[in-house]
Amino acid sequence: MKKPLAFDIHTKGPGLARAGVIRTPHGDIATPAFIAVGTKAAVRGLTVDMLRDIGVEAVLANTYHLYMQPGEALVRTMGGLHEMMGWKGPTMTDSGGFQVFSLGAGYGTNVSKILKDMTVRPLLKERDEEATKPRLVEIDHDGAAFKSPLDGIIHYITPERSIEIQHAIGADIIFAFDECTSPSESKAYQREALDRTHRWGKRSLEYHLSRPESERQALFGIVQGGRYEDLRKESATAIGAMDFDGFGIGGSFDKQDLHTAVRWVNEVLPEGKPRHLLGIGEPEDLFLGVENGCDTFDCVAPTRLGRHGTLYTKDGKIHISNTKYSADISPLDPDCDCYACRNYTRAYIAHLYKSREMLGPMLCSIHNLYFIVNLVKNMRQALTDGTFLSYKKEFLGRYQAGKDDLK
Amino acid sequence: MKKPLAFDIHTKGPGLARAGVIRTPHGDIATPAFIAVGTKAAVRGLTVDMLRDIGVEAVLANTYHLYMQPGEALVRTMGGLHEMMGWKGPTMTDSGGFQVFSLGAGYGTNVSKILKDMTVRPLLKERDEEATKPRLVEIDHDGAAFKSPLDGIIHYITPERSIEIQHAIGADIIFAFDECTSPSESKAYQREALDRTHRWGKRSLEYHLSRPESERQALFGIVQGGRYEDLRKESATAIGAMDFDGFGIGGSFDKQDLHTAVRWVNEVLPEGKPRHLLGIGEPEDLFLGVENGCDTFDCVAPTRLGRHGTLYTKDGKIHISNTKYSADISPLDPDCDCYACRNYTRAYIAHLYKSREMLGPMLCSIHNLYFIVNLVKNMRQALTDGTFLSYKKEFLGRYQAGKDDLK
Repeated sequence: MKKPLAFDIHTKGPGLARAGVIRTPHGDIATPAFIAVGTKAAVRGLTVDMLRDIGVEAVLANTYHLYMQPGEALVRTMGGLHEMMGWKGPTMTDSGGFQVFSLGAGYGTNVSKILKDMTVRPLLKERDEEATKPRLVEIDHDGAAFKSPLDGIIHYITPERSIEIQHAIGADIIFAFDECTSPSESKAYQREALDRTHRWGKRSLEYHLSRPESERQALFGIVQGGRYEDLRKESATAIGAMDFDGFGIGGSFDKQDLHTAVRWVNEVLPEGKPRHLLGIGEPEDLFLGVENGCDTFDCVAPTRLGRHGTLYTKDGKIHISNTKYSADISPLDPDCDCYACRNYTRAYIAHLYKSREMLGPMLCSIHNLYFIVNLVKNMRQALTDGTFLSYKKEFLGRYQAGKDDLK
Repeated sequence: MKKPLAFDIHTKGPGLARAGVIRTPHGDIATPAFIAVGTKAAVRGLTVDMLRDIGVEAVLANTYHLYMQPGEALVRTMGGLHEMMGWKGPTMTDSGGFQVFSLGAGYGTNVSKILKDMTVRPLLKERDEEATKPRLVEIDHDGAAFKSPLDGIIHYITPERSIEIQHAIGADIIFAFDECTSPSESKAYQREALDRTHRWGKRSLEYHLSRPESERQALFGIVQGGRYEDLRKESATAIGAMDFDGFGIGGSFDKQDLHTAVRWVNEVLPEGKPRHLLGIGEPEDLFLGVENGCDTFDCVAPTRLGRHGTLYTKDGKIHISNTKYSADISPLDPDCDCYACRNYTRAYIAHLYKSREMLGPMLCSIHNLYFIVNLVKNMRQALTDGTFLSYKKEFLGRYQAGKDDLK
């Protein structure tokens, strides 16, 4: 059978790091790479031309959101994800697992808060008495039932249904259905959830391979296991042994767990297949992810922070509403070549932000996405040049010493 | 003294129509032309690159809004309007009169409602007993005092102050301070207000000519007079006799008054200077304005309607949230070559609109602005080709017969 994806590694090290190329039916992704998140088949506030100008190589859309609105049948009517959103490059969809389970922690709460406070769990019968908040998700052996926050209708997603939806959406790379657990879960629950994730991974793969779409779309299995070394390694072994085209590393990571969890996993996963670290995008974490063997990353942080006026600079994050920028006619980041920095001043963007002009979030999103996408491109170049560790030291030294407005 | 503006007419007729070129220090405007409104030094949701791609030739910003935020001193710090917003082409600022007086009708109400219901008047002492709603504006001989809706501070704008602010902002074409009255005003009040407008026009001009900026910036006088033929002609005679570089035609027009009021004025104004019809942008009105001798137009309608999902098509206006577009994979307007129509379907834009994705208003604003800007360009071409009346008949016949969702 024709493979929908190829992966070539051309540089290895330091650590588990590698630089390479993922080849998809819609073009190549030079790895390591940061993938832009286009939740509902649109990267917030940016046209696809802007994405290309920024240097974005691939876009990840969220299956859950597209399933809810407009529904996968309409995505198919519009010619699938690429055609629908006018993006000609590679695409991914996640499995919907993260969003389904985050409903249990309160829909509408922002993700970083969910990651901190994910204390209400997806439920099993025996856990009912523990739940203290209204829950929107019920899990059983076969899948997850959840109530739509849009219309209150109950939906039930199984591994087969997740893959079926992702086939209809038509991204180049799709993900197996998994259960994403909170770091605050007990080990007993993580163990139980991990068994489900492995079962669901196997079912996702079997269903995928039984359909003609498997020649056009690549399926990545998802490794879970929380903060536990034994569970992470067991998960990497189990998922790594299945015939996936690549892997996703999932979970809600505590900052300090991230690199150890990722290293445990990537020491076990087969070397020749690409590894995507789900939902990670802060500069420090991207360096750790790359050094510990991840090839691609996605995160809403650059555009979400940008919409709210928080901007990455080489000297740390700044918040554009800070009074000191009102008359500052320097660019957002003097070392940046993005469209916003080439054409506008901090003072103008501060004015747009205070005036609630849409152009403000647009320019800030362009800047932040450019910053992160090109940070990972620079890591790739440093890997190729053999200067990764010195680049990391130099970048993070300046970034972390910077005058971060948010400290 | 060097003139900051030149105007060449190369085609005349039918009626009072003319096609020509306005030459400014920042480039030419081929007239008739529709000028995009960038209220706070930004056209809502569009970058200046998008404006250029659309074919926009000039941008009009609102003095009142920039005076309030960020203040004209900061605009000057940022290098003036062009430098601040990165727009290299011609610019205009209005005088602030319209916004100041519309405060009297309730800040925050939308303009079309204000135009309909503008029953609370700017006040003179003797009119106090008539006022029934809270008023934010007081007028006297020298100017208008108003309370800022941002911080409650009282501001007082005289003709000299309006020109001083517009000098600091630095647009190529600026406007004299005037009093914009509602069509529902009594003739006695219109008469009184008109005398003020003429006095203020003269003072605006004298102050302008006394400053070095008059070599770089052109000043347009504003003709008022409501729906009254004698007042309109008197105003055109008085303002037309002053040494302005061009003219604005102001007022809140009833639909049926527009073309007569404009014709009365343009039959009197000196032929060799450009005429800007303030705040007008619907297709029917643009044809009337062009045919009756106006050269430029501005209006927030294309972007405001776009942000709210109402779209111009050659077959009338459509509203993108209408259920019938959910699975419609044709472009917004099959005859349109704008970025949105070349790349996206109605179904996708309906999805963006329902999902409250920023890209929805962005694409709809691009489409509407392209539609109106190019409609006026087509009128110009038709004037040059001698086919204006048949173009008007053809366009409006189809447009008005169209399946307007809003009828």
